[in-house]
Amino acid sequence: MPDGTSRFSTLDGKPIYHFMGCSTFAEYTVVAEISCAVVSEKAPLDKVCLFGCGVSTGLGAVLKTCAVEEGATVAVFGLGAVGLAVIQAAKMRKARRIFAIDMNEKKFEMARQLGATDCLNPSTYGDKPIQTVIVEMTTWGVDYTFDATGNTEVMCAALECAHRGWGVSCVIGVAASGKLLQTRPFQLITGRTWKGTAFGGWKSRVDVPLLVQQYLEGELPIDHYVTHEFEGVDKINDAIHSLHEGGCLRAVVSYAKP
Amino acid sequence: MPDGTSRFSTLDGKPIYHFMGCSTFAEYTVVAEISCAVVSEKAPLDKVCLFGCGVSTGLGAVLKTCAVEEGATVAVFGLGAVGLAVIQAAKMRKARRIFAIDMNEKKFEMARQLGATDCLNPSTYGDKPIQTVIVEMTTWGVDYTFDATGNTEVMCAALECAHRGWGVSCVIGVAASGKLLQTRPFQLITGRTWKGTAFGGWKSRVDVPLLVQQYLEGELPIDHYVTHEFEGVDKINDAIHSLHEGGCLRAVVSYAKP
Repeated sequence: MPDGTSRFSTLDGKPIYHFMGCSTFAEYTVVAEISCAVVSEKAPLDKVCLFGCGVSTGLGAVLKTCAVEEGATVAVFGLGAVGLAVIQAAKMRKARRIFAIDMNEKKFEMARQLGATDCLNPSTYGDKPIQTVIVEMTTWGVDYTFDATGNTEVMCAALECAHRGWGVSCVIGVAASGKLLQTRPFQLITGRTWKGTAFGGWKSRVDVPLLVQQYLEGELPIDHYVTHEFEGVDKINDAIHSLHEGGCLRAVVSYAKP
Repeated sequence: MPDGTSRFSTLDGKPIYHFMGCSTFAEYTVVAEISCAVVSEKAPLDKVCLFGCGVSTGLGAVLKTCAVEEGATVAVFGLGAVGLAVIQAAKMRKARRIFAIDMNEKKFEMARQLGATDCLNPSTYGDKPIQTVIVEMTTWGVDYTFDATGNTEVMCAALECAHRGWGVSCVIGVAASGKLLQTRPFQLITGRTWKGTAFGGWKSRVDVPLLVQQYLEGELPIDHYVTHEFEGVDKINDAIHSLHEGGCLRAVVSYAKP
């Protein structure tokens, strides 16, 4: 909890701390008031749960944090659910060209369906860094670039293919502990801006209900992110396992069996 | 020149390349059309030459690149002419609090005259990093921070004391070749923005004449940056030497002896 206390304990009274402040791997939990958003009662929870993180983060990185405008060019590194949400939002904003970058080419089909115009696999360019490939394809780089990998080297590549003079690069992925960003200050001096986003800049209590409403009105489809479904809280480990396999975008676990 | 050619040569025809595109250490030079700005004939060249770089860069970092607003808090690292120009511009924009940071406390008097509210010498805080000192003085950091040192470690310190959630840090100083910025991506994820500026974001042909006009109308005093004056082009080395001594802000060399 925000005050450092916990609402969980073992039977013999030892405290169990909350995981990520919410502990939503439990069937029942207690969350702080600021972690709670009231959404429409019509919302199917096995879909709108995606707005709790990830998908909303990718959408918000484009719509809020960077406020991408019509006609801009966009590149996203990493085509998991977050990266695909970046593409979806860029398409909503009528981006002119959307680069989708991943080592796993199986991700390209969905990326194209959502609006990607150029799908690139960095491992097919030999020794040429992917940022160089993209700069050469665009003359001076891309207006907005996003990292959705959590890999600090990719974050730097994303910065370095942002457009000279005005390009903005946004870190979305969470890096492993101890990993550092490393780049030449020249990259900033020549007019690039480096940003980051947490939860896409949305305020959860105010904005999640609005995202849910947009979903219900058919303006913001998200069903395509649910590639796996499990029933029963005991299937949590299977869900995590499927996420690791690469073919999964989001695995939804329904705790109460029907 | 922008096309890679040179307008200088030795008597036996070997090309001499332009220094920084302008070669203003020569009494006469040829510059590219885009390097030339037409300023008021009333302008005293031994003062408005400061708008050629440095002073205009520091002013523009605040007024253009970061567009600091009234009531904001500002910190600047390095109190040479560029850093002092940052303070001057922050004061023009009615910043609420202006931190001035330098190891050389002799710089503090001028900083205060221009509007600094808090002058800090990082070497007086023992092992405590200056970014920690500033965060503690402000709870969550400073709205806008500027590096005017060219030291990459200072650039990172400036980022790290920018306000969590919305702080903007701007690199102005030019780093030594090969030096890298190094920071945790967490610094960006938590809402900081990292920028850089070249020539303060001014367009030289359009904006320099306007800066000169503001100077002539008394709205933008810059005479205080001229601490040393030399007569004759043969005094160039003396001017450079005085800049290295630490007591000099700008040394103006008049090439044609009166």
